[in-house]
Amino acid sequence: MINFTVKPLNNPWQNELEAVINGKTKPLGALGQLEDVAKQLASIQSQGQASVVESIEIDNPTMLVFAGDHGIAQHGVSIAPSAVTRQMVLNFIAGGAAINCFCRTNNIALKIIDAGIVEAITPNEIADDALFFEQRLAPGTQDFSTTAAMTSSQVNIGLAYGATMAVQEIAQGCNLLMLGEMGIGNTSSASAIMSLLLSLAPELCVGQGTGIDAAQLSLKQTLITQAVNRVNSEYNSAESLSEKTIMAEVGGFEIVQMVGAILASAQAQTPVLIDGFIVSVAALLAVKMHPETQAYLLYSHQSQEQAHQIVLEHLSAKPLLNLGLRLGEGTGAALALPLLNAAASFYNDMASFESAGVTV
Amino acid sequence: MINFTVKPLNNPWQNELEAVINGKTKPLGALGQLEDVAKQLASIQSQGQASVVESIEIDNPTMLVFAGDHGIAQHGVSIAPSAVTRQMVLNFIAGGAAINCFCRTNNIALKIIDAGIVEAITPNEIADDALFFEQRLAPGTQDFSTTAAMTSSQVNIGLAYGATMAVQEIAQGCNLLMLGEMGIGNTSSASAIMSLLLSLAPELCVGQGTGIDAAQLSLKQTLITQAVNRVNSEYNSAESLSEKTIMAEVGGFEIVQMVGAILASAQAQTPVLIDGFIVSVAALLAVKMHPETQAYLLYSHQSQEQAHQIVLEHLSAKPLLNLGLRLGEGTGAALALPLLNAAASFYNDMASFESAGVTV
Repeated sequence: MINFTVKPLNNPWQNELEAVINGKTKPLGALGQLEDVAKQLASIQSQGQASVVESIEIDNPTMLVFAGDHGIAQHGVSIAPSAVTRQMVLNFIAGGAAINCFCRTNNIALKIIDAGIVEAITPNEIADDALFFEQRLAPGTQDFSTTAAMTSSQVNIGLAYGATMAVQEIAQGCNLLMLGEMGIGNTSSASAIMSLLLSLAPELCVGQGTGIDAAQLSLKQTLITQAVNRVNSEYNSAESLSEKTIMAEVGGFEIVQMVGAILASAQAQTPVLIDGFIVSVAALLAVKMHPETQAYLLYSHQSQEQAHQIVLEHLSAKPLLNLGLRLGEGTGAALALPLLNAAASFYNDMASFESAGVTV
Repeated sequence: MINFTVKPLNNPWQNELEAVINGKTKPLGALGQLEDVAKQLASIQSQGQASVVESIEIDNPTMLVFAGDHGIAQHGVSIAPSAVTRQMVLNFIAGGAAINCFCRTNNIALKIIDAGIVEAITPNEIADDALFFEQRLAPGTQDFSTTAAMTSSQVNIGLAYGATMAVQEIAQGCNLLMLGEMGIGNTSSASAIMSLLLSLAPELCVGQGTGIDAAQLSLKQTLITQAVNRVNSEYNSAESLSEKTIMAEVGGFEIVQMVGAILASAQAQTPVLIDGFIVSVAALLAVKMHPETQAYLLYSHQSQEQAHQIVLEHLSAKPLLNLGLRLGEGTGAALALPLLNAAASFYNDMASFESAGVTV
């Protein structure tokens, strides 16, 4: 069984970092959230160094998009049927989806992982072996409204699969990971996880996903409430519900693998740029399992999903973008990467008052 | 005297554009504000075409940073003295400022214009002739708390200078302009313009700029109130105050030249990406002079300056970023450019449901 060891961020450089950033030719704090990003990245990269790093390096930023199908989708709680998960994976492979466009535009390497969609992709459907990875846990999860979504063994294998992907990318020179997901029904899974993890009423955790109507929303709330009640009645108290149990009961294969990828990245002291609601729920699981993970997470955007804001608050996260996105796929993270590059560029290349002869 | 002719955006393509965007492999509206950006850019570029453009082109995006000094600065209403305007212009020329970093990172051409700083830059201080342009109206404006900032002739020359810069860039192949500014004291000028233009109490229009203290804020409010009262008493009614008169009374050389650049761009059917408070006030002047200009403006960010939000509301603007920036220089616009590139990329390259075989 996989065990993660996430060490606390070792950051003796707080004062030095502030001095570097405050010495740049700008009013104090005038670059707002970009200054926070620069501090976080420089803190991470200064670990084990003899002083604060002179420059923040963002090397081979890589987007891992995990896809999985969900038994709950058979109830029609999404705008599309499960078949669309596979069609979109083929769209990713063909380069035609939004995430492909944004990765190309922002120079992000993109990898697609089948974490367990209903029908596997066949070899002749794969044009580029470097793009697509098969890490299937099963042909979709069970319907969690009536039974556990997966076994505890699938949870453990999923964590290991996700971790392996992250470790591979880091070994190949990536020092910033981004995560995205595709899976019809996965906002339902994320909502159920959130409700159990935070002990919040399902109504607070359920939203319109990518755009369902009122009747679908009502059904989605009913099914998630049913699932949450089922799980709570099977366990004596909220305290006895571990994160792994919650993943087994109401999780998704793509979500579990993302949790593994996040924990492995934090273990490898590598920052992860979090996308929207579903990836944020994966982040919340990772942080609940290993709180030190938090130091390695950056938050790209606030999506239109109401529950996302609550999850972000629980993570003390201040996302960089708020563009009314509700697409998933990692699109918010891909769109936010240029802001991380900009934070690095001002940290690395901006003149100091002293060097520029500015007398403020 | 310069006259601008801004024609209404000719957009018979609304339905076709919606069909293109809604046909992309994503839930309806799921790309939020990026869809608005794509529609606006595609509408602009489809003018005079036989159908909607197949792709949005963003060619040679160029940042014009206009610098000017302000007589009002002698009262100490900023965090820095006027001398810092010149020092920062030298920093721009040397490549060491935040705007240099962000333009490099985001592949934006950068030009610096001396619109009238106190002490001119000498030839031996200019390393790169293609970077720096001298369009000086005077060594800084007059102190507008007691007298007109500039003459009506200077307003007209300034508009022409700014227009000329824009026209030159467009002629050289730029089809997206960005504007930025540098000028100690220019939030005071922008606040006074805003108060007169919108008939709003000065208190609503004055903020902390790049970070002044309470005493400076109080002085700034007093001086701007004095200026607004002076101007109002010299003219019979608010109706008689033209935008040009307001610029002459309380404007800045960099602001006037930006208004000229905005109007010339709109006249040339070229979009302009607006930066923070001061550039937004220049945009408001341009829109009040020629309301059709509005169709060509995109808004990059909401700055920390409270008054900026009010100006944006008057422009019906929904900015792309809200990062707590308060630096100016065009930094917000430079940071937002990747979102425009992303909007173009999804419009241009994303598969349709039909082409990708996705059955939503």
